[in-house]
Amino acid sequence: MTGTPEPFTADDYTARMRRAARAAGDAGLDGVLIAPGPDLVWLTGYRPPETERLTLLVLRPGEDPALVVPALEAPDAAKAAPMLALRDWTDGTDPYETAADLLGRADRTGRTGRSGGRFGVSDNAWAMHLLGLQNRLPDTAYVSLTEALPMLRAVKDAAELQRLAAAGAAADAAYEEIREVRFAGRRETEVAADLAGLLRQFGHSQVDFTIVASGPNGANPHHEAGDRVIERGDMVVLDFGGLKHGYGSDTSRTVHVGEPDAEERRVHDIVRAAQEEGVRAVRPGAACQDVDRAARAVITEAGYGEYFIHRTGHGIGVTTHEPPYMVEGEERPLVPGMCFSVEPGVYLPGRFGVRIEDIVTVTEDGGRRLNTSEREMAIVE
Amino acid sequence: MTGTPEPFTADDYTARMRRAARAAGDAGLDGVLIAPGPDLVWLTGYRPPETERLTLLVLRPGEDPALVVPALEAPDAAKAAPMLALRDWTDGTDPYETAADLLGRADRTGRTGRSGGRFGVSDNAWAMHLLGLQNRLPDTAYVSLTEALPMLRAVKDAAELQRLAAAGAAADAAYEEIREVRFAGRRETEVAADLAGLLRQFGHSQVDFTIVASGPNGANPHHEAGDRVIERGDMVVLDFGGLKHGYGSDTSRTVHVGEPDAEERRVHDIVRAAQEEGVRAVRPGAACQDVDRAARAVITEAGYGEYFIHRTGHGIGVTTHEPPYMVEGEERPLVPGMCFSVEPGVYLPGRFGVRIEDIVTVTEDGGRRLNTSEREMAIVE
Repeated sequence: MTGTPEPFTADDYTARMRRAARAAGDAGLDGVLIAPGPDLVWLTGYRPPETERLTLLVLRPGEDPALVVPALEAPDAAKAAPMLALRDWTDGTDPYETAADLLGRADRTGRTGRSGGRFGVSDNAWAMHLLGLQNRLPDTAYVSLTEALPMLRAVKDAAELQRLAAAGAAADAAYEEIREVRFAGRRETEVAADLAGLLRQFGHSQVDFTIVASGPNGANPHHEAGDRVIERGDMVVLDFGGLKHGYGSDTSRTVHVGEPDAEERRVHDIVRAAQEEGVRAVRPGAACQDVDRAARAVITEAGYGEYFIHRTGHGIGVTTHEPPYMVEGEERPLVPGMCFSVEPGVYLPGRFGVRIEDIVTVTEDGGRRLNTSEREMAIVE
Repeated sequence: MTGTPEPFTADDYTARMRRAARAAGDAGLDGVLIAPGPDLVWLTGYRPPETERLTLLVLRPGEDPALVVPALEAPDAAKAAPMLALRDWTDGTDPYETAADLLGRADRTGRTGRSGGRFGVSDNAWAMHLLGLQNRLPDTAYVSLTEALPMLRAVKDAAELQRLAAAGAAADAAYEEIREVRFAGRRETEVAADLAGLLRQFGHSQVDFTIVASGPNGANPHHEAGDRVIERGDMVVLDFGGLKHGYGSDTSRTVHVGEPDAEERRVHDIVRAAQEEGVRAVRPGAACQDVDRAARAVITEAGYGEYFIHRTGHGIGVTTHEPPYMVEGEERPLVPGMCFSVEPGVYLPGRFGVRIEDIVTVTEDGGRRLNTSEREMAIVE
């Protein structure tokens, strides 16, 4: 429980923007186009209202960052991100023309023979805006940031790690306390509300999910929390997280109401061993898919392979789902500073589910958990 | 204050999907592609987690609706939207291949000579997903729904109007009560919290914005609520809304702490007259831009034209910003059942702002306000 970290400064953001522009150049792009959401928050600290009006940060190697912004939001943008040159547009005018002026400059910077340019674009930019740009500048090409620069936000610096560790510690503290509340006889939504309250109590400014999946609901990995009354004898998957100091938490533990039977205990042991092996596979230079394979092998060898129906993990930072993904086919190497979940699970339709999840960061010689709460199956009342 | 309306049924959603597919065909499209968000909620009632995993509803004239869905979300989708055929995909496989199978069928339905097809796509679909489809099916063309079928959700039926009226009445009730709270000496954020509490108290399930913009902050139309302590003598713009029974509210009133001076009163009178003229311009067959022009003329003639820096209004339904837009250049006609804001404003930099906003619905012979609270400048303490 450390204090509030120093806020990121305009210099921090300027350095990130410069790094992004340079990475774009290195990847053969003419620039990157950043939409409101996690990319923009990470690069500038600016969090505009997410509406249909075009806001777009244009980063080009060797040029100053420029923000296309609706005129009526320009004052807020100037205050939140004073280091940006603003290009505002007014209702009733064509915002893509304003943006095209920044993109079309490829012609005038000596890149002869290129009439268009190739730009990375935020995954979550609106399709409407991408189509607007494609129509206005038919010779330009676009590629999603996850494809072009998947590792842009993936390697965390010390200040980011500090925040992720604080978010993880807060989630752990919430888990320690939720084990003490009553489960039997209460609705999933009631336990979920307790969890949300605990996350806030331990410093989360935003709660993004509080999954409480009891009995057969646990077999649905994305079940949130419903009206089902939890019974004695239920397995209960808890998966919860949100933002603290702007960075994410995301952890899962599976508890049991009263004593488990032999198969429940067996499945929990398998998932726990799989999670252990997944974390053990984390080291610099290993491929992302190796983490998935290591965890999956344990479950497959135990005969439950067909019931592990999702990837093993996802990156985490200013948002709770981002590259790198621990999934078969992702061959990129792990790099010190990356942070992601390791969360194998087994889901037995109509019966129960088990998932165990920690956030792990890649160190110089292995992996370190940012969640350290007990992974053994807790018996709750 | 009526009771909870009957929920929409699978038949209601099926009818909406059929109407959308037919409208697509009439517009020369091979279908529409619907992303999670307001379009999907309106068409199916399904509100999946908004993550990077592809969820896409494919509607094609004469075919049954199909939903591309991540395998691990398929159980929730089946429960929320039982009328949909699901096409699930698993982590590690290519979701665009699953989608392409549904889109590529243009070749096999007798549309000879078309190798691709042309599809409308939700405005807010992720650029990453649009690029995935464009890469997988290079011969297909895409157009945003706001461009292709802007009026798809614009004309509300009786059950939708009932919900919008209920949301408006709740916002009006919240305004009546907020006038009684103390303004002077309290922070904007404190009054905003009061407003949010009142909206919830009057039945909102979700509060989307509670703008409290006092004194000079009022000159920034998108100022939300900050640390500024409200003083005697301040103008205060209040602009608040959210969702009740799944439909939106959005209303603005400008109040004054203590007695206003002559110019404050004059500007308020001008904006009120402009709002009156905007509402008076609402009738079937008038162009959207006529509403903007009517309101703007009053402000321009009074000499404040350069300080009215946004469009006059936006549609409202399952989201608080959607077509039709009351803006210069929007020549489409108003149709009975459309619902939108009429919200002129004047913003004097460094001094104060005034905005007055009602939701208005087009009737058979004019317009009817869904907000009926007092528009005269309220004097608060």
